[in-house]
Amino acid sequence: MPRVVVNVMPKPEILDPQGKAVTGALQRLGFQGLSVRQGKRFEVEVDGDVTPEVLAQIERAAETLFANTVIESYDVVTN
Amino acid sequence: MPRVVVNVMPKPEILDPQGKAVTGALQRLGFQGLSVRQGKRFEVEVDGDVTPEVLAQIERAAETLFANTVIESYDVVTN
Repeated sequence: MPRVVVNVMPKPEILDPQGKAVTGALQRLGFQGLSVRQGKRFEVEVDGDVTPEVLAQIERAAETLFANTVIESYDVVTN
Repeated sequence: MPRVVVNVMPKPEILDPQGKAVTGALQRLGFQGLSVRQGKRFEVEVDGDVTPEVLAQIERAAETLFANTVIESYDVVTN
């Protein structure tokens, strides 16, 4: 079934407490020189073909449901 | 700064309550024919170059910290 991925990440200017916690845990576990930001990945399965209309619908879903666009940005990826 | 992405998704045979909730909400909002699985996206910034050693370290971090490998699978993506 065709699949479209929507990546949602905290905006660069927004604090990312989850990512901060993961980065701190990495350092405590001995992983050096890694810094992490954490976001969400939505894999959207589409009934039928990925037409421009379907993509526009997914874009709208990302805007209204997947991402909180005040603090997060999203990216719709097809391949 | 060089960046490596780690995608973490619930394994196919595992129930995905978050994805189910999002799929249900999409239908209630009038989006038809979309089914969603929800996972996590970690953007790892690396101090210095992405050497095979650094990649092995990130692979280990994914295994031990980013993913719960009992119920989730992960995928390390460089580009």
